[in-house]
Amino acid sequence: MLILALDTATDQGSLALVEGETLLLEYSLESATTYLSRLLPGVAAAIKAVGREPADLGAVAVGLGPGNFTGLRLGIATAKALAWSLSCPLVPVPTMEALAAQSPFQPHPIGVLLDAKRNEVFWSVYRCPADLPQVEAEPVRLPLAELARRLAPPLVLTGPGVEILAAFIQGQFGDGITLAPPESRYPRAATLARLAQSRLEAGLTASPQQLAPTYLRPAL
Amino acid sequence: MLILALDTATDQGSLALVEGETLLLEYSLESATTYLSRLLPGVAAAIKAVGREPADLGAVAVGLGPGNFTGLRLGIATAKALAWSLSCPLVPVPTMEALAAQSPFQPHPIGVLLDAKRNEVFWSVYRCPADLPQVEAEPVRLPLAELARRLAPPLVLTGPGVEILAAFIQGQFGDGITLAPPESRYPRAATLARLAQSRLEAGLTASPQQLAPTYLRPAL
Repeated sequence: MLILALDTATDQGSLALVEGETLLLEYSLESATTYLSRLLPGVAAAIKAVGREPADLGAVAVGLGPGNFTGLRLGIATAKALAWSLSCPLVPVPTMEALAAQSPFQPHPIGVLLDAKRNEVFWSVYRCPADLPQVEAEPVRLPLAELARRLAPPLVLTGPGVEILAAFIQGQFGDGITLAPPESRYPRAATLARLAQSRLEAGLTASPQQLAPTYLRPAL
Repeated sequence: MLILALDTATDQGSLALVEGETLLLEYSLESATTYLSRLLPGVAAAIKAVGREPADLGAVAVGLGPGNFTGLRLGIATAKALAWSLSCPLVPVPTMEALAAQSPFQPHPIGVLLDAKRNEVFWSVYRCPADLPQVEAEPVRLPLAELARRLAPPLVLTGPGVEILAAFIQGQFGDGITLAPPESRYPRAATLARLAQSRLEAGLTASPQQLAPTYLRPAL
């Protein structure tokens, strides 16, 4: 089944076309503004580049956030419109779960960190001992100061928010907290597509007319 | 420093523009033929998409193989011509090392497997306990039958060749051999760029006029 996956929750948008275990195409671009203004043309160009038609899509997977407010709204609106028009399943995937799945086979917990602006962060903890992550602490929004108290080694830290805290963390915890390599700190649409396949098999699809992004209020 | 990275050693070409820890753009496309015919236009479009000029490139990183003969020759020829014309360093990175670096923080050895056609494979073993891999068994070319004898669990297996052997491996070794998720089995230009940065700091650059791909003769 041909799956279109897209994530626009962060500064780096990503879209992919995946069929079974084959990644046909993946495109990631920093600068959400540029990316979003080209999202539908980008989808059209991607489908053409792999020699397919829009009607070939078997499912549309979309990153549900949390993350950038405008980015999420536009990405999810595009995914909903495509799934509805093409009468194919719409599969929402939490953006932070995709990020955790990009650090598979980890004996340690994986902390996922996104910048929520105004000195706040989105924070969640997953375990990913094999290839599919399980949530250990559901995503919350926290003041940066509160986050520091929740970091307990051993921990693998990933997500675009890592840069905010890299210096502090390495000063405070040394080697006890491991930072994921930079190229795995942004959500990849290819990983989103893989998680969407499991969800599809489990019947976890959403209504194109009702799906809304995950916005998180402060958890304190 | 703005780095252009590209890898054309496998069926899936990948190019990326990276600056420091920021992945500005990454584009991966299955079907080497299509990809290669669009390689230079793809590089031009990528540089334009991130609002830069060719003269802004500080280095060109290229996957050195082993892998697809024609793909490697064209990719490396393009990288050499760009580095020479723009008078910037050319940084070769073994394709299999990039693949190993896509499974970081692994307590177990990482076996990297590429299809060498005609019932042969390219095979190497790395360790990647942190974010940079160290080679444990240099790349060799082997008959498929010989490879089976070298697989000793515990092992994480990655590379585009994994698909050839997935059924055999899971029947033979069960959980002792772990398969990397499909989206990390092809070389990512973003990872290549990260490895190139370490090499650049160590002065490991190549002459644009002399660099040649890694072709491997049978190792038996």
